[in-house]
Amino acid sequence: MATLIIGTDRVATFATACREFDPGHDIRQWPDVGRAEDIRYALAWGPPAGELAKLPNLELIVSVGAGVDHLMKDPLLPHVPVARFVDADLTGRMVSYVAANVLFHHRRMNELRAQQAAAVWKYLPEPAAHELTVGIMGLGVLGQACAQALLPLGYSLAGWSRTPKGVPDVACFAGAIGLDAFLGATDILVVLLPLTPDTRGIIDRKLLAKLRRPKLLPGPVLINAGRGGLQSEQDIVASLDAGELYAASLDVFTTEPLPPSSPVWGHERILLTPHIAAESDPRAIARYLIAQIGRKQCGEPLPNLVDRQRGY
Amino acid sequence: MATLIIGTDRVATFATACREFDPGHDIRQWPDVGRAEDIRYALAWGPPAGELAKLPNLELIVSVGAGVDHLMKDPLLPHVPVARFVDADLTGRMVSYVAANVLFHHRRMNELRAQQAAAVWKYLPEPAAHELTVGIMGLGVLGQACAQALLPLGYSLAGWSRTPKGVPDVACFAGAIGLDAFLGATDILVVLLPLTPDTRGIIDRKLLAKLRRPKLLPGPVLINAGRGGLQSEQDIVASLDAGELYAASLDVFTTEPLPPSSPVWGHERILLTPHIAAESDPRAIARYLIAQIGRKQCGEPLPNLVDRQRGY
Repeated sequence: MATLIIGTDRVATFATACREFDPGHDIRQWPDVGRAEDIRYALAWGPPAGELAKLPNLELIVSVGAGVDHLMKDPLLPHVPVARFVDADLTGRMVSYVAANVLFHHRRMNELRAQQAAAVWKYLPEPAAHELTVGIMGLGVLGQACAQALLPLGYSLAGWSRTPKGVPDVACFAGAIGLDAFLGATDILVVLLPLTPDTRGIIDRKLLAKLRRPKLLPGPVLINAGRGGLQSEQDIVASLDAGELYAASLDVFTTEPLPPSSPVWGHERILLTPHIAAESDPRAIARYLIAQIGRKQCGEPLPNLVDRQRGY
Repeated sequence: MATLIIGTDRVATFATACREFDPGHDIRQWPDVGRAEDIRYALAWGPPAGELAKLPNLELIVSVGAGVDHLMKDPLLPHVPVARFVDADLTGRMVSYVAANVLFHHRRMNELRAQQAAAVWKYLPEPAAHELTVGIMGLGVLGQACAQALLPLGYSLAGWSRTPKGVPDVACFAGAIGLDAFLGATDILVVLLPLTPDTRGIIDRKLLAKLRRPKLLPGPVLINAGRGGLQSEQDIVASLDAGELYAASLDVFTTEPLPPSSPVWGHERILLTPHIAAESDPRAIARYLIAQIGRKQCGEPLPNLVDRQRGY
């Protein structure tokens, strides 16, 4: 009985963390699979297509991240349970990324930095937090945790999800029918959606044009910490340049690492981070993986299982 | 019976807001005092020394800000009650300034900005929020409100005040005897102290050297949103350049506006803002002033009165 770590560029890091957490566990590092029949469990991030299908006794796949689009694009993905990685450490990091970027744009820190560089001492008008509505697309564990941290900062909150959800103190909208009303009530858009065939490319210029124009800020704001495939980077740049969008924080991109030729690098109103919003802590991954394997072995129900039909 | 607005560079703005809020109120704009005997109340920010002493019937002075050091330096300040400005709008703005700057340095946004400018895609290690202790100097209304907003972001909290205070979920230290232990437990220092003879110049290189060195960040962080007179800017620059301090956010300065010759403007690890952390909203000021005058006229107790002995 063995576990294979596959696909991620941190295979060795995760293997070390798993061995430290559970020294008796037989951990294999792809491509050194050994006897394929031994492998019952896999910890994976974007594995090469068809590789997991070569494991005849595979019982469970655990994703290294909260998203599983990197697994779903393997047409030969075995029909075994797939568990997303959900953890307080990862959730806390996402919350601080989102709060940091909401506050950065609300408090016009980019413009204040430019004033500092030019030695300019000048007041810039800013709305109070309660005059801004932060709209969160995606009301799963991460979206709801962000809402709970943004409320004490004074923001008004709205949320949008595929299927209707109720979240305390958040004005909730759902489905295609609720999208325009959600956008029309949102000054700062936070995107935490899973990447599925339904959501691919959803953040385009047409959608951004429907955001509300906030009081005392030059325009609405986009923060994408979900997946790069959700957005059109060309459209975001066009929206910014046309003044339809004030600023954007992007942690994810259609191609990662972002190619040096991308206009996003040099855009003065885009805050670019290299997919670091919520880095999976190897110790937390190891703890979660071993716990999920333990539940599987005991026949207990597994939390955070993926619905293959809806794709997350 | 009239109210004089004096000293601030926004006399006309505040006068307009007061007249809109209470059209019947006789508002005078310094230096057009009219009959000095008419003036019963004053709304003031750094009035010219001796000016308030010329008002024989003055009953109450209301400060435009949360601090009153700008009043206390007038040796002829009349012996009438002085009320600090305390308001949910001002408090909310201070909370968002503090949270924005704590998160900015925690998430290494300055370094990530530099990486973006150089088109570098590189992960920078960051601690989880719970691995950092934010230490707040000054546990008044503003300090306590900041603590309540930082807790849901996952930080550990410490606090220091002149006299012992208890704040839920905050490790509280007090007085000269508690200062070193407080600093030794603090990774990110937030200064919200009043400026008094006891606190002038308290933020010097010796104090900064006592801060804890956080996990995974290059060093401790200073955020001063209190008063410029609390700090030595020369010492802060020296601490940064010696690597004793990782970064600083300064909203206040010993001389304001900050002179163009100051080395603070160009320091790459100082985030400078032009005293905008918590700008007093004219509508909120007007509401507060008229309410305080109403209480005074009815003989009701006034909230937020200054203790002249301790100086705040």
